[in-house]
Amino acid sequence: MRNLSLVLSYEGTRYHGWQCQPNAVTVEETVRKAVERILDHPSKLYAGARTDSGVHALGQVTNFFTPKPIELKNLVRGLNSLLPPDIRARDAREVEDSFHARYSATSKIYIYSILNDPCNSPFLCRYSLHVPYTLDLAAMKRTIRLVKGEHDFSAFKKKDEFYRNPVREVRSASVARRGKMVYIAIEASGFLRYMVRNIVGTLVLVGQGRMGEDEFKSVLESRERERAGPTAPAHGLILKAIRYAG
Amino acid sequence: MRNLSLVLSYEGTRYHGWQCQPNAVTVEETVRKAVERILDHPSKLYAGARTDSGVHALGQVTNFFTPKPIELKNLVRGLNSLLPPDIRARDAREVEDSFHARYSATSKIYIYSILNDPCNSPFLCRYSLHVPYTLDLAAMKRTIRLVKGEHDFSAFKKKDEFYRNPVREVRSASVARRGKMVYIAIEASGFLRYMVRNIVGTLVLVGQGRMGEDEFKSVLESRERERAGPTAPAHGLILKAIRYAG
Repeated sequence: MRNLSLVLSYEGTRYHGWQCQPNAVTVEETVRKAVERILDHPSKLYAGARTDSGVHALGQVTNFFTPKPIELKNLVRGLNSLLPPDIRARDAREVEDSFHARYSATSKIYIYSILNDPCNSPFLCRYSLHVPYTLDLAAMKRTIRLVKGEHDFSAFKKKDEFYRNPVREVRSASVARRGKMVYIAIEASGFLRYMVRNIVGTLVLVGQGRMGEDEFKSVLESRERERAGPTAPAHGLILKAIRYAG
Repeated sequence: MRNLSLVLSYEGTRYHGWQCQPNAVTVEETVRKAVERILDHPSKLYAGARTDSGVHALGQVTNFFTPKPIELKNLVRGLNSLLPPDIRARDAREVEDSFHARYSATSKIYIYSILNDPCNSPFLCRYSLHVPYTLDLAAMKRTIRLVKGEHDFSAFKKKDEFYRNPVREVRSASVARRGKMVYIAIEASGFLRYMVRNIVGTLVLVGQGRMGEDEFKSVLESRERERAGPTAPAHGLILKAIRYAG
């Protein structure tokens, strides 16, 4: 059996996230049907990250097994002819048997986009949170440093979600302005559900002057979800890339 | 009566162009209904450019008359609360009685976007033409100079469209690459219908090496629509701005 991995980009607006669900169109199901049509056998797709409903991806990774000798170029071409325009296969590779899109990943990088302008944009509104008021970027930049390193991120988890181990390691975290856009990038070994969106929602409070750096620190340390800010909407979030060793 | 002008941005995907039509949702109708709801009287909107079905706008201009003393800031805020997210009012001004969004315009600037990359993008596919093969940018840059100045643009008009005067003056025309994107910008005193899209469709033939600079010149001079290339699709076109004197 060959183990094949794909890099996928998708615009998540129309999808109920990655993972298959009854009565809802998901990215996994859409991709799996295209893969099965090309390979002509049932396929199980393993994904690097289970993106939530409405979240986008530039570099999602999935892998699956096949005995077929299909050429990788033809697989990509075939998938892109079958997939809708809001999902694209960017690349295909043959990987070792032991490769698993999720368990082999060493880190994932998410980017949250904010359009910081009095007027929203009909073009960017699908991919960014609109924040019309002035944001204190310096305060946000100082504060985001607090999430770097190993922490129990329970304060930023999804409400009522339970984790045996809610500790994650944030490798890098930054806030940057480019024109009217503000990008919040977080790379971590793994993420709790809604973790990026809850950090962003809380960081926007800091940018508005409604929460100080010290309070953000005590929220993180409290491990209490109730003390953090609101969950930033899904449509501003994009899975930028998944990193693998080697 | 006050004469008010608005600058509008819209993502044209969902609309059958600017101009009102029976049995089709248009930008004009959507904006007019919002304006009428705020002003509480019937309104006639004059538009700077009648964008075609699927064409986008960053800086469409429209004007209308009202006796109401509404503040311009409140008009913009009110419109943006009533309009769908794919149409935004960016600015409102009080203009002279004689101002007409179309007849007072001195020029319009359109930009056509091409994503020139082997793989299409789920994010850019709504706003750009995907061209997977290599384009000869140097040839396209040389060739687009030919459309500058006053010409009878009949070769690039919409088929079966009749003009008493098909002469238009192109003030500037350029081709530029930025990363994977190729932007074709044309500013003119006025445009024939489909003129930009037909110039772009023909220019792509030049970029592919399927038409030479000399042939492009003879196509333009022939004034025969049949000799030019195909009409580039609407979704790559954006009305960037409309200029007015003073």
